[in-house]
Amino acid sequence: MSVQVIPTDEAIRDVEAYMTGLGQSARQAAAAMRRASGGAKNAALLAIAARLQSRREAVAAANAEDMSRGRASGLDAALLDRLELTPARIDAMIEGLHHVAALPDPVGEIDGLRFRPSGIQVGQMRVPLGVIGIIYESRPNVTVEAASLCLKSGNAAILRGGSESRGSNAAIAGCIRDGLSDAGLPEAAVQVVATTDRTAVGKLITMPEYVDVIIPRGGKSLIERISREARVPVIKHLDGVCHVYVDATADLDKAIAIAVNAKTHRYGTCNTMETLLLDAPVAEVLLPRLAVAYAEHGVELRGCERTRLILPEATVAGEADWGAEYLAPILAVRVVDGIEAAIEHIERYGSHHTDAIVTNDYGLSRRFMAEVDSSSVMVNASTRFADGVEYGLGAEIGISTDKLHARGPVGLEGLTTRKYVVLGDGQIRQ
Amino acid sequence: MSVQVIPTDEAIRDVEAYMTGLGQSARQAAAAMRRASGGAKNAALLAIAARLQSRREAVAAANAEDMSRGRASGLDAALLDRLELTPARIDAMIEGLHHVAALPDPVGEIDGLRFRPSGIQVGQMRVPLGVIGIIYESRPNVTVEAASLCLKSGNAAILRGGSESRGSNAAIAGCIRDGLSDAGLPEAAVQVVATTDRTAVGKLITMPEYVDVIIPRGGKSLIERISREARVPVIKHLDGVCHVYVDATADLDKAIAIAVNAKTHRYGTCNTMETLLLDAPVAEVLLPRLAVAYAEHGVELRGCERTRLILPEATVAGEADWGAEYLAPILAVRVVDGIEAAIEHIERYGSHHTDAIVTNDYGLSRRFMAEVDSSSVMVNASTRFADGVEYGLGAEIGISTDKLHARGPVGLEGLTTRKYVVLGDGQIRQ
Repeated sequence: MSVQVIPTDEAIRDVEAYMTGLGQSARQAAAAMRRASGGAKNAALLAIAARLQSRREAVAAANAEDMSRGRASGLDAALLDRLELTPARIDAMIEGLHHVAALPDPVGEIDGLRFRPSGIQVGQMRVPLGVIGIIYESRPNVTVEAASLCLKSGNAAILRGGSESRGSNAAIAGCIRDGLSDAGLPEAAVQVVATTDRTAVGKLITMPEYVDVIIPRGGKSLIERISREARVPVIKHLDGVCHVYVDATADLDKAIAIAVNAKTHRYGTCNTMETLLLDAPVAEVLLPRLAVAYAEHGVELRGCERTRLILPEATVAGEADWGAEYLAPILAVRVVDGIEAAIEHIERYGSHHTDAIVTNDYGLSRRFMAEVDSSSVMVNASTRFADGVEYGLGAEIGISTDKLHARGPVGLEGLTTRKYVVLGDGQIRQ
Repeated sequence: MSVQVIPTDEAIRDVEAYMTGLGQSARQAAAAMRRASGGAKNAALLAIAARLQSRREAVAAANAEDMSRGRASGLDAALLDRLELTPARIDAMIEGLHHVAALPDPVGEIDGLRFRPSGIQVGQMRVPLGVIGIIYESRPNVTVEAASLCLKSGNAAILRGGSESRGSNAAIAGCIRDGLSDAGLPEAAVQVVATTDRTAVGKLITMPEYVDVIIPRGGKSLIERISREARVPVIKHLDGVCHVYVDATADLDKAIAIAVNAKTHRYGTCNTMETLLLDAPVAEVLLPRLAVAYAEHGVELRGCERTRLILPEATVAGEADWGAEYLAPILAVRVVDGIEAAIEHIERYGSHHTDAIVTNDYGLSRRFMAEVDSSSVMVNASTRFADGVEYGLGAEIGISTDKLHARGPVGLEGLTTRKYVVLGDGQIRQ
């Protein structure tokens, strides 16, 4: 076991025992959190916000140390940007806590309570999952985001942030701990792993007795490693290879607006379009207009042969371009013959994340919705809408590319489950 | 690789390649099944029923061979009983198909379609999971049950039955295949694994590219092995250590009726009560009456010290009795001081399956419902009601002791998931 020589790790020699301890405390705290009223949970969220506000200098100072350590160790500019807690980002964390406090409490809601012929009433009650482990990388504001959503949904959380942000996370963890205590909730309801030893993650994802679900937030390799090694269910988010298919009946202005927005609104997000599919009859009219619009944004087009007949300046799309998640100003373009070919392409090369059709044909809109097997299927809207807040979930812990439990944007409901409740009057089974 | 020398296995020398082939065919069939109308699926269910009816002699003959092979190899009476397809059981399979055909189609239902401030409408559409692998033991009627539920919910299925029932399963598989074909659905929508080689299971549970979920139905060791080795989500069903807690305010006649029914209605089921908890003030009145009732059923009582003060004839319950899943006419009995102690006992020793309170106290009923973290929580009803048909799910593929995705009895909905659908009119993200 390699214990790195950094302050927070010094006291933790036996990582296995340390993680087991966190697990046991979390399991106990989860029982108290399950019973906590919405009022107590909201009070804790607001108390954490107050602690963050009153200690914002200390949090900023801890972050400044992380930043200088990061610079010294040669972190690249993008990572440093994600690591930084500017005053605006601290404000956003505080605002986020107020926002989550204002959301309705998902816990305890009973659905579909109905009488059965036997005389019992059966329904389903929404309840917390229990203990949620969240593993994330450099952004320290995730510590507050994740904690607030777990707390609001009545769960206990064990948070494992990136080693670059350990100082910031420790400062934030202090605010969370004290805020929980201010509100009379157990401090162990949110625990931040205080060691950067990598074996801590291995232990966290293999304690089904203490952890009910793992949510990794980070790069593909992190998520793949966790999915492979976990002995606990994982809500995972892999690729977003999203498509827009423009059908021959589409309103061309809307098609262009959607195709441009889906690609250029942000390049690095999972709901960004990566491949544009054009129905053959509209390709000739649309492609030149799209080429102009994309050129303004500096988007490189990689086209199939039929695309390049119309747009010779496009580079050649190879087999690897279909299925590529560029996360960059590059777009693969393919001309297809009708919806059948479009759906076939999406099924073959897509990642079942988010796919849209632009059409004015009623039948095709229904067919696309029913047949495309993706977590979000859209008609006449930009793929960029695939987002918990845009969908009205209030907040988002991530987007699931899994099929079971939660599919697509995951909000508070995704952090809960439903148990059956049965109300009787002495009924016995005959 | 050990290929056993039995007819169906002879042709299958490369089990890995064979299973991969089943997976590929299932994945293709799943795409067709996703699009199949409710009418086509129902037609297939009825066609399978018709095939079973017209070939019932052949199915019975195949089963008779399995039975004699089973007797020769020394299967015990219980296993032989489960293996046998009596005329009544064949009737029940046929009836079951008609019953499932009559259930509403879960696929395509859209929930909560609402306008968002951006102008898009967002809702969730119920869709099939894709390919479901079901691994079960000796009962050949599970082949029809599992196939019918997967089919109705628009999934493709790969079924792996016990080696004892291979002849019966092959005969039933023929009926299913021909019934699917009669209705114009792909034959590969339901595939029965034709090899009894054990490596087939190992392959089936590690093909995430072809299989979306595994449902094991069988003994605990089978389920534990599959959960440990699977690289695909598993909907699993482990122990049922169910409790009934009788509070001091309970109606005593109802308490006795429920306590007797929950224990004696059937001994071998997972929703059978295994431990009875009695609030101290009622123990003295209840225990002697219960002792008489249980004696009539030949139920052995194992009591805590306080139980034995009232009922000296009860045997001594040791630590292992709390938490035991007897599946037999044995009952652990403990006297506790109030709901706090009862819930504590249930949390510590229970399996989070089904737990009931008998009470006439409004506050305690609410508390028990909210605080007991089990897949079914009941007030004044027998734990034996924890069942898909009793709950109104129409049918049941099993009872999940997991928290994610499906918790408690799993019906057709548990074999589906929900994707987001977004309807717009050209909206782009600002």
